[in-house]
Order: sequence, then structure tokens, then C-alpha cells
Amino acid sequence: MSGRKASTVRRRVEQVSVEGGDPSRRERTDTLATEEPLEIRIVRSEELRGGRVESEAATRVAVTMRTPGADFELAAGFLYGEGLIESGDSISAIRYCVDAEQQYNVVNVVLARGVAFDPSSLARNFYATSSCGVCGKASIDAVMGPACARVESAVSISPDVLVSLPDKLRARQAVFERTGGLHAAALFTADGELLAAREDVGRHNAMDKLVGASLLAGELPWGERTVLVSGRLSFELVQKAARAGAAVLAGVSAPSSLAVELAEASGVTLVGFLRGNRFNVYAGGARVAPAVHT
Amino acid sequence: MSGRKASTVRRRVEQVSVEGGDPSRRERTDTLATEEPLEIRIVRSEELRGGRVESEAATRVAVTMRTPGADFELAAGFLYGEGLIESGDSISAIRYCVDAEQQYNVVNVVLARGVAFDPSSLARNFYATSSCGVCGKASIDAVMGPACARVESAVSISPDVLVSLPDKLRARQAVFERTGGLHAAALFTADGELLAAREDVGRHNAMDKLVGASLLAGELPWGERTVLVSGRLSFELVQKAARAGAAVLAGVSAPSSLAVELAEASGVTLVGFLRGNRFNVYAGGARVAPAVHT
Repeated sequence: MSGRKASTVRRRVEQVSVEGGDPSRRERTDTLATEEPLEIRIVRSEELRGGRVESEAATRVAVTMRTPGADFELAAGFLYGEGLIESGDSISAIRYCVDAEQQYNVVNVVLARGVAFDPSSLARNFYATSSCGVCGKASIDAVMGPACARVESAVSISPDVLVSLPDKLRARQAVFERTGGLHAAALFTADGELLAAREDVGRHNAMDKLVGASLLAGELPWGERTVLVSGRLSFELVQKAARAGAAVLAGVSAPSSLAVELAEASGVTLVGFLRGNRFNVYAGGARVAPAVHT
Repeated sequence: MSGRKASTVRRRVEQVSVEGGDPSRRERTDTLATEEPLEIRIVRSEELRGGRVESEAATRVAVTMRTPGADFELAAGFLYGEGLIESGDSISAIRYCVDAEQQYNVVNVVLARGVAFDPSSLARNFYATSSCGVCGKASIDAVMGPACARVESAVSISPDVLVSLPDKLRARQAVFERTGGLHAAALFTADGELLAAREDVGRHNAMDKLVGASLLAGELPWGERTVLVSGRLSFELVQKAARAGAAVLAGVSAPSSLAVELAEASGVTLVGFLRGNRFNVYAGGARVAPAVHT
């Protein structure tokens, strides 16, 4: 495992069909989404030795299974979502740690001089979890606690624009088309213009990549933006969207109970089951403008 | 938040339709899958005070966002998957910690007398992650390292049986039908008999519940069993299936690159895109018997 990582790999698979009493087995080549671990490390500027990162000076923050691509955005977005950095200015550099055995699977995020980071607080606060995304929380109180400032955007989005978003995302999901195995998150203007889209085997990674891209471009908070995600609307996705200041979070599938509660509490408009010409509004319906034709 | 948790909740939602120039907004009641945090704690028998668990004697191991139901199985399955316990005999009792503010969202797993557990090793080894499931790993080496014994089952499963499994699972997915928001994992015999099914907002939780149910019933390793999951086939799901000794892991969606690699390395037959009368075999094809009609 060395060299830059590709986001897909090709494999021989055996395709079996038992259709109509005429069963068959044949070999073909399939394209799979790459899944590999990414270790995210934090390095304080004060710990650089002649510009180089000594391995022992880096603090491991997370290992996430991700689809390679936009790794720096993923690292930045993850740290922002976890509240470990407050803006793009908190970061002085992001680099692959190519000395590591796992080349291009380790990223060092070098904090800007003066940005506070206490590794011992991390050791105390980070615990394991098998959930999607909720982690780095010492206890339920930390998971459920006040996440971030309430989103106060006065933007309005029309139903006609909302129902147009899934097709626009699909048109951009290049890798998904080939593998059938990737989640996506996309950023739209209130007029329905697609600004950015990111993909990953993990739903939360796709969102982290999207947040990280905006963070590194100095474009947070999102304010008037709508975010569309390909999967289920979980608590954690609402948390990440609220932290980035999104006005609207929309998904093609169902929200969970806690996702709806958090959306209400944090002022995020939550749209689910966005399919065909329909959708459900679970929270913040005031931002959904009357349909054009009424 | 007190009292036993329900697996679904009912909410008022606004349903918007922009069909055919006749847009409408109407209020209706929707059923959502409950998502709440579950904190899993380990308690050593030696630390019980008159049979009671003192809060300070329990070590927090994980907080996972889960759908209530089968919480004890989830806790047991999670600890087994993480290698923290080796069999059902390692556990002397599992109880809700109802003293906690989050009643029925905290579970204490009391280890059997003499079962080794070192909380300080946990603090060193567990790190945060935003991935689905991969966690509690100090570094990439730990994530990628040898997970478990190779599955050596000589069982054979026919294509006709395999294609029949998704419908059997759907028939049992009671909550899914009402919410559209739950993942499932189900255990089948080689003849296609459904033995158990578990649901959760998190794919990995559904698998942990299924593993935990078998663990607590003394029915691990699975050996000749086939496991079917509703979502994408990730590295972590293969890890959990291999750890439980499943012969076949099947899914209705795509596997990732690393899922295929691990399935090959651990001797698990991996079946993907199991839809209609077709499927793909990504690893361990020798266990898929020739189709009946050939």
C-alpha cells in the first residue's frame, strides 16, 4: 500500500443469475469504491522541528474508514465538526505523513501558532463507539449537549427548487454511478445551484469533506445554503450541518427521532423523503416558501 | 427522558407535493425510528458493592446512537466484536443503570469473576472516529491487524436459497415498514430458514445486536450460518461477521474494496448486490453451490 490512493478499484467477480430456470455463473470485472483507513493527527506549530513533523509530536485524533480523495478536506471538516478548531485560520498546513508505513493514509493537520490544543484533554474525552459519527464524546451528556449557535438564516427555498436537487446531485455523482456504493453530500444555493459535492463510503465522511472544503475556502458559516445528503438523516448529520450553519438539510430518506429534535433546537430546516415531486418537512417549515403555483 | 424507550415515535410533519401544477401542503402524522444514545459500561464483579454498581466503579467503553430495543444484546455484541470479551461466559449480568439521568440509555455489563479487564488499556487504545464502526483502535495498524481466526466452514449454500433471503428479511422488518429508516441484519441457516433479525438506525448496531443475541444464547461461532445485511458491505461489517464465524455475509448493496480483501483473508464468502434473481460473489465462491437447474 504505497502511492496516492485511487477512489475506485477493479476486481474480478462472479455474477450469478437464477432467472427463469436458466441459471448461470460468469466472471466479470466490477468497479468497487475504495475503502481505506485515514488517520487524522494534530500537530502544534511549536512542535515542528525545522518545518518537519516528528512522529512523536503528532497526536492521533481519529482513524476513519474513508474513500480516498479530498483527504485534507475530510480532516479539516472532521476537526471542525468535533469543535477542535474554530475556523480555517486555526490551520497552518495539512500534509500527508508519507514517512508512515501507510503512505497517504495518515494526515497531519498543523495548527496555526497560538491555537490552543491540549492532547491530554483528548485522551480524557475521546471514547470508542460503533455508531456512525458520534464519537469523541466522553458521555451521553457530551453527545447531547449544546452543540453550537442556533442557525438564524432568513433565507427561503421554494418547493420547486427542493425537488430539483436530487437529480442535480446524481448528475455529479460520478463514482457512485460506477460502484453503487458511495454516499454523497452536496451544497446548493437557495436558487438550486450546485456549488460542491463530495462522496465517500461513509455518509459522515462525505459531509465532513463538504464542510472541510468550505472551511478551507473561508466560506463558513453556510448561512443561506441547503445541504443534500444521499442517505438517512441521523442526529450526527444534523449536528454537522448545524455546526456549519446550514439553513436547510435535506435527504432522500427518513430522519430519526433525535435528528428532528436537534433540527428544531438548532434552527435547521429538516427535509426528508425528498423523492420525485414530494418531500416531508420535519422542522423549520417557515423557510420553505409557498409553492410557486399556489 | 425516563422510562423504557420505544423503538418508534410519532411526529407531526408537513407533506409537500409539487405535482402537476397542483402543489399542496398538508399536515400528517409520521412514524420515525427512535435514535438515542446508549452508553455501554464495563463493571468488574470485584467492584460490586453488595450487588450494586457504584457509578465510579463502571468504565465507560462506548456511546453509540442506537434504536432502543435489544440493548443488552447490542452491548454484548459490541464488546465481543471489539475483542473485549471472548464468550457469553465472560458476562455475569447486564443491567440498565436506572440511577443515571439518562434512564434506560446506560447499560452496565458486569464481567464474570476472574475475567480480565484493564480500564487503563482502554484509555490508551480507544480513539475517536467518524467512521461507521471502526473505532476503539489506537492506530491504523490496530484497525488493519489480524482480526480473528479464519472461518473454515465447509457449508454450501445454493443460489436459489440466496436469492430468497431478502424477501424473508423484509417480511420480518416490522419497524422498517413503518419508518423507512432502519437497517437490518438477519441470520439464516444454509437452507434459508430465518433464525433471527435485528434492526437499528445504525447498520453496525443491527449486526452487533444479532451477534449479541447469539453470544448470550451460547450459539457462537455461527459456523454454517449466512448473515444478510440491508445496507452497504463495509470493512467493519465483514470484521464483525468474521469475528462471529459466519460462513457467508450477503448484502443487497455494494461492498467496498477493503471489505472484499478482508473477506478473502478471513475466509468469509462475500455476496453483494443480492437483488431479484441475481447476485455477485466477491470472495469465497466455493461455498456457493452450483445452481439447482444446471
